[in-house]
Amino acid sequence: MELDFAKLDGLLPAVVQDHATGEVLMLGFMNAEALEYTRRTGEVHFYSRTRKRLWKKGETSGHVLRVRQLLFDCDADSLLIRVDPVGPGVCHEGYRSCFFRRLENGQWQVSEERTYDPHAVYGGKA
Amino acid sequence: MELDFAKLDGLLPAVVQDHATGEVLMLGFMNAEALEYTRRTGEVHFYSRTRKRLWKKGETSGHVLRVRQLLFDCDADSLLIRVDPVGPGVCHEGYRSCFFRRLENGQWQVSEERTYDPHAVYGGKA
Repeated sequence: MELDFAKLDGLLPAVVQDHATGEVLMLGFMNAEALEYTRRTGEVHFYSRTRKRLWKKGETSGHVLRVRQLLFDCDADSLLIRVDPVGPGVCHEGYRSCFFRRLENGQWQVSEERTYDPHAVYGGKA
Repeated sequence: MELDFAKLDGLLPAVVQDHATGEVLMLGFMNAEALEYTRRTGEVHFYSRTRKRLWKKGETSGHVLRVRQLLFDCDADSLLIRVDPVGPGVCHEGYRSCFFRRLENGQWQVSEERTYDPHAVYGGKA
């Protein structure tokens, strides 16, 4: 079975899940090169749509994602990556998960506590 | 905070997670209309990129997804939906999760058991 990169202009959405807790941490996009780097190094790489380049998750913060399992779906157009996350959080805003806002009574609300200070980690870069 | 539908031609990737077990069940895409139907009805609706139309997950199989929590990420361009899935599986190939293939020793392999017979549920439609 071949992965189907054609549906999204060469990209696959990749869901990142904490292998130990099951928490969904983030969603990124991979092109074939990012997937190849991820497989070869055992650390998650994405393709940045805004910066238009390969990036290793954690290249600035040190909060890398170590791959435990790599899965793909029935249509071969999405990935699920179970990882051991290194560091206090994957989100550049200082949270464990990028999904820290939820809909409550028709309002989007922050529903988690920060786990680290993003300014101390990213400085002026985030 | 406004959701950013512009990055992907009016669509947001939406990760569906089993609220009780934490299992990631599938990834679909929502346009604004699909999100509105999901919020209004409490059952997950997607926009089908191949059929180019709104579809309610489970409209054929009865395996609907009941929304428990709706979250979005720091960039406001992805959704995470925690659900109670109705029925034995969300995958049209007869599995509980669409992510039933994993990479093992460089080979993609099926790593789950079927939970139902897709031909009995979908007939000639899948």
